[in-house]
Amino acid sequence: MTDRRVVGVDVGGTKILAGIVDPAGQIEHRRERPTDLDSQERLIDEIGTAVDELLDDSVAAVGLGLPSRIDQQAGRVDGSVNIPLADVPLRQLMTERFGRPVALENDGNAAALAEHRAGAGRGARTIVMLTLGTGVGGGVVLDGRLLRDGGELGHTVLVYDGLPCQGTCTGRGHLEAYVSGTAAAKLAQQAFGPAVDAHRLVRLAAEGDATAIEILDGIGRKLGSAIAGFVNIFRPQLVVIGGGFASAGDFLLGPARETMHRDALPPANERVEIVRAELGTAAGVIGAALVAYDELG
Amino acid sequence: MTDRRVVGVDVGGTKILAGIVDPAGQIEHRRERPTDLDSQERLIDEIGTAVDELLDDSVAAVGLGLPSRIDQQAGRVDGSVNIPLADVPLRQLMTERFGRPVALENDGNAAALAEHRAGAGRGARTIVMLTLGTGVGGGVVLDGRLLRDGGELGHTVLVYDGLPCQGTCTGRGHLEAYVSGTAAAKLAQQAFGPAVDAHRLVRLAAEGDATAIEILDGIGRKLGSAIAGFVNIFRPQLVVIGGGFASAGDFLLGPARETMHRDALPPANERVEIVRAELGTAAGVIGAALVAYDELG
Repeated sequence: MTDRRVVGVDVGGTKILAGIVDPAGQIEHRRERPTDLDSQERLIDEIGTAVDELLDDSVAAVGLGLPSRIDQQAGRVDGSVNIPLADVPLRQLMTERFGRPVALENDGNAAALAEHRAGAGRGARTIVMLTLGTGVGGGVVLDGRLLRDGGELGHTVLVYDGLPCQGTCTGRGHLEAYVSGTAAAKLAQQAFGPAVDAHRLVRLAAEGDATAIEILDGIGRKLGSAIAGFVNIFRPQLVVIGGGFASAGDFLLGPARETMHRDALPPANERVEIVRAELGTAAGVIGAALVAYDELG
Repeated sequence: MTDRRVVGVDVGGTKILAGIVDPAGQIEHRRERPTDLDSQERLIDEIGTAVDELLDDSVAAVGLGLPSRIDQQAGRVDGSVNIPLADVPLRQLMTERFGRPVALENDGNAAALAEHRAGAGRGARTIVMLTLGTGVGGGVVLDGRLLRDGGELGHTVLVYDGLPCQGTCTGRGHLEAYVSGTAAAKLAQQAFGPAVDAHRLVRLAAEGDATAIEILDGIGRKLGSAIAGFVNIFRPQLVVIGGGFASAGDFLLGPARETMHRDALPPANERVEIVRAELGTAAGVIGAALVAYDELG
């Protein structure tokens, strides 16, 4: 069984990434397809096609990473914020379609496991990961084990009764509404006009624009305050920041380290490191595959 | 070994409670002493005396519940907010003094374990517990296992850059500064004058005073918003509220349920129950003992 492989899939709001992943977390072969958001039926079919392209006799299992809340006991997707997938027994459907064991995992959790095993979190017992993109995903590896069910760190309060979330979250003042790429783009557009997105904001900061730097500083301070709470809850050795908006680097993480230092309890506030993720856009695919390997045992 | 017993100790800011606890979490014999806050040395000696009074041949181990951050690997108390205990290898010191295995646990964590095994959380796989007293303690039992190291749910952000914490926490806007009995007393004193504490506030609400009810409603809404975040992180079946200020009951928990319902993601927001703790002031002693039983194996 040493040459068995697993297919990992990362279902995002715009693309479905799939790859054959080896047990060490290396992607051997990868494919990308656009996400079909028209209906749940078509989305499920599109995920199926993405996997079919990679299935061969060496593939022992399939791991699906989804931007969704998952009931692991039931193998059911309970709901999703940015894709049409809710109340569906996806594990059973996909197990029947692929004729192989299928594991489901929230995409933030999958990315956290990937960074822990094969990325920035190697060697740490406990890590907290946040992915800053369209939304804010999260995941926690506790004493080497992924916290499954839950882990929605982006949907925890930062500003009581504050800004509303988007999509199916009716919460107010959640982290996601303040430190996602989407939130950054809104602030950037207020300052610079409607053509500016989060990438452009980071570029402007890198070119020395004081307003851009100030916007990223403000977001970073909020991020650090939330991180401090996660440090007090989980006492990780490492906090890993991934997702597209992590490209802001120390414009974001510098101020985040300052407020984390103020807001976390000693001695963790002195010891915890906040670092950038290493696996980039591959983290979801790798993590989904690692979850499937773990379930194979 | 079926008749072996464990001594559980709950070290609080004003009293040290100790008891002989059976494996089911029943207290067979209990003692109370005032907490000596003059120095670390005297406090440790006082804890020793509290245990000595209960030691006999049936006692196989001692569990200490402390309002402290504990490094479980090292057996060290890293720091405490309300008692003079910091940077001390307490497990080793106490193991030598008592001639028996000693377990250390944060008091909020100990209370959560006690409520899970012997109180309001019986039968639930995952619970989150908050104790509302002088501060806000917290604890999480995940799939039946206590989350050790960390669990400081009271020191997570509720209001970014908001009210400062007391004691050794330099954080701002933490839950503890808004929903503790201390925070309630401050609001009550602003409304009714300096003689009013949290207990009196609850009494006034019970007598129908509209201002008192409104103050508790505001605190409850904040509590619910924070609980929603913990629900999104841990997906518990149950959130248990203990501590002296939990006596506010539905004046607090009614509004808390409303904001939890708004701020937590579906389907958990419909399913999670927020209930009062059952074990009262005994939870710390029972939980400390249960931690010691678990370590005995």
